[in-house]
Amino acid sequence: MSVDTTKEYALNLDRQDALAEFRGRFSITDPELVYMDGNSLGRLPKETVDLLAKVIQQEWGEQLIRSWGAGWFEAPIRIGEKIARLVGAAPGQVAISDSTTINLFKLSMAALQLLPNRRKIVTDTPNFPTDLYVLQGCNNLLGGTFQIEMLPVGPDGITVDQQALTNAIDEDTVLVSLSHVHFKSGFLYDAQAITRRCHEKGALVLWDLSHSAGAVPVQLDDWDADFAVGCSYKYLNGGPGAPAFLYVNRRWQGKALSPIWGWFGDRSPFRFDLEYHPANDIRQFIAGTPSILSLAAIEPGVDLLLEAGMDRLRTKSAALTGYMIDLFDNLLSPLGFTLGTPRDPARRGSHVSIRHPEGYRINRALIEEMKVVPDFREPDNIRLGLAPIYTSFQDVWETVGRLRRLMIEGRHLKYPPDRRMVT
Amino acid sequence: MSVDTTKEYALNLDRQDALAEFRGRFSITDPELVYMDGNSLGRLPKETVDLLAKVIQQEWGEQLIRSWGAGWFEAPIRIGEKIARLVGAAPGQVAISDSTTINLFKLSMAALQLLPNRRKIVTDTPNFPTDLYVLQGCNNLLGGTFQIEMLPVGPDGITVDQQALTNAIDEDTVLVSLSHVHFKSGFLYDAQAITRRCHEKGALVLWDLSHSAGAVPVQLDDWDADFAVGCSYKYLNGGPGAPAFLYVNRRWQGKALSPIWGWFGDRSPFRFDLEYHPANDIRQFIAGTPSILSLAAIEPGVDLLLEAGMDRLRTKSAALTGYMIDLFDNLLSPLGFTLGTPRDPARRGSHVSIRHPEGYRINRALIEEMKVVPDFREPDNIRLGLAPIYTSFQDVWETVGRLRRLMIEGRHLKYPPDRRMVT
Repeated sequence: MSVDTTKEYALNLDRQDALAEFRGRFSITDPELVYMDGNSLGRLPKETVDLLAKVIQQEWGEQLIRSWGAGWFEAPIRIGEKIARLVGAAPGQVAISDSTTINLFKLSMAALQLLPNRRKIVTDTPNFPTDLYVLQGCNNLLGGTFQIEMLPVGPDGITVDQQALTNAIDEDTVLVSLSHVHFKSGFLYDAQAITRRCHEKGALVLWDLSHSAGAVPVQLDDWDADFAVGCSYKYLNGGPGAPAFLYVNRRWQGKALSPIWGWFGDRSPFRFDLEYHPANDIRQFIAGTPSILSLAAIEPGVDLLLEAGMDRLRTKSAALTGYMIDLFDNLLSPLGFTLGTPRDPARRGSHVSIRHPEGYRINRALIEEMKVVPDFREPDNIRLGLAPIYTSFQDVWETVGRLRRLMIEGRHLKYPPDRRMVT
Repeated sequence: MSVDTTKEYALNLDRQDALAEFRGRFSITDPELVYMDGNSLGRLPKETVDLLAKVIQQEWGEQLIRSWGAGWFEAPIRIGEKIARLVGAAPGQVAISDSTTINLFKLSMAALQLLPNRRKIVTDTPNFPTDLYVLQGCNNLLGGTFQIEMLPVGPDGITVDQQALTNAIDEDTVLVSLSHVHFKSGFLYDAQAITRRCHEKGALVLWDLSHSAGAVPVQLDDWDADFAVGCSYKYLNGGPGAPAFLYVNRRWQGKALSPIWGWFGDRSPFRFDLEYHPANDIRQFIAGTPSILSLAAIEPGVDLLLEAGMDRLRTKSAALTGYMIDLFDNLLSPLGFTLGTPRDPARRGSHVSIRHPEGYRINRALIEEMKVVPDFREPDNIRLGLAPIYTSFQDVWETVGRLRRLMIEGRHLKYPPDRRMVT
């Protein structure tokens, strides 16, 4: 498809952008830098700077231990309830606690023990590795008696065949654990249909929302999901390694049992009983003392998303990724790149992967020579994250233009082709 | 014993204090406030304010994702190695990761599976509840086949009988899990002797150093401990809910298996293999992405302790607690208080518990009426934390004097005697 590739066209799209004002709510100190990695680490909201100064200097420095009774103790639930509104969950089902990995472990272990006669776990190979590793670890802990079926991607290298997935979910399936949006390709599952299939077969489903919360519509209650986890430092803009959130559908509360019996999950943490009495609500899945500084940092980014509204965010996200793909077709495809992301906007999240055999050094040159910051994922994916709340259409235009110039000038060739750790 | 109870005597002790200068390195904005809760939440180092401003505004705000390769990825080990120096551990055995609860879970599960033919776990009733709950949860996960023996406190209400503990550790014991310093009484175990006993019987030992790291000498390698965990937000001054540390003796690395298989514990996290390959070093026990803001905050407090030196810290701690007990005997004991902490300085940590039937409302009145901030622990303990790096002898004198005035004036009587959640 032909697209207007002029800068003026991009600027015009920005002028029409209903969310344009939100860019100014983030700390952007270098206007030349084009940040394309909000799907890995979201930008810093200006409000977060002020809030953290207050938490550090007043709440910690001056109020000291008294701050636990003045907000800290309730923060995992209070801020969790704001995230709940972003992911379509009624109150009482979301908490912030620990890392995504730890939360995957808690909920997977809980799920696997809910249906003791079933032995099949279904996931897919494009899932994020920690999701797969946690399942393997749970299986090991529980005697290795489960079969973990990992659906592969189909011939397009992107899509997991929905029919094959549907067929894999059967009466022996205890848990289906999937990322709603794949971390490399941005492929987006029809979560509602898969959840329905799980329940038709009596299986449980756990959705990892790390690459969807704040970027694509999520309706956990409407889907009738059983469990979910998600990351707060990507599209939620909660800061590096911010604690993750977890969702336990109300029907499983008091039935699903967290494997980690911590004092924050006890019915009365400050009674200091010798025996654990699991809380019958979402608090049970909070294990130990929350990291308050990292937790507090989550709130302003979530507030901005709530103010923007998921409908407008999704509309802009689809426009950004669509524009990126249009420019890709016209300007990058002729240079040896292939598209690693679904063309159907209904089937993609908010990042676009472009693939190239020299992806590793191209990514490096983009960062070091062109002031464009995406990230690289093995073997050949350059991920371009288009966080709708602060990414402009001009950002997209600049990215494609600078990348094209880099390729034409061969500026990536001076970097070693070897692949070391790239974050 | 009679002691000079004048203010001049306290001021003179402060003049002789070799660590006096360190108080000025902490943010102390209200000179009237006497903070007696550094054993629950350590004070804010001034350096931490500047460091966090840099981490937030430059590392997150400006460098964004590039900061992972410029220090964040290594931070759990790099800062962990500094804590290692405080707890007598050679390099390669300490990492910072998750909460104390999560780390107790990882190491307890690993330990319980190392010696599969043994069925007894030894702990004690004065242990912190999360330590007990984690053991109960591990036992539940592993089929409930373990017997958890909880040694009680003896007739003094403080001490666990060392001979009874020794007798409990036998050839069927797989794991002895104890807090080095008890959270209520401040009772300090002879960790070296207990560790030796464990090994004589072929058992493993896990030390919770939450109330000892940074306050009393810890020599994990000299003791030949197997595993340890500890909290960073008490005497280490790492900030509210700061991530905890864990120690795995080198001999168990590559043998002990973390139950939580996360991508940060994989041999090559950024290869994104489909199968988990556990790292054979301490990194295996880091599960998911670390909370960078809370993690970064730990370093300045640890640096201050290293600069002060554990010998000087212990000397001052013993002097502070000794002075507190001397004043207690002269000024508080006659008012109905009893001492809840060992009199032998070799058997106590760095806090002093004083007990009173009206402890709950006395603690509340101390905070709200007298600007003295201790904390309360059921059923009747007022804990006075004497963090040696910033607590002055004048603080101790003020605490006792204000508490005495409170009691004589009956100012606690206007508060309800009921016990609600106190943090």
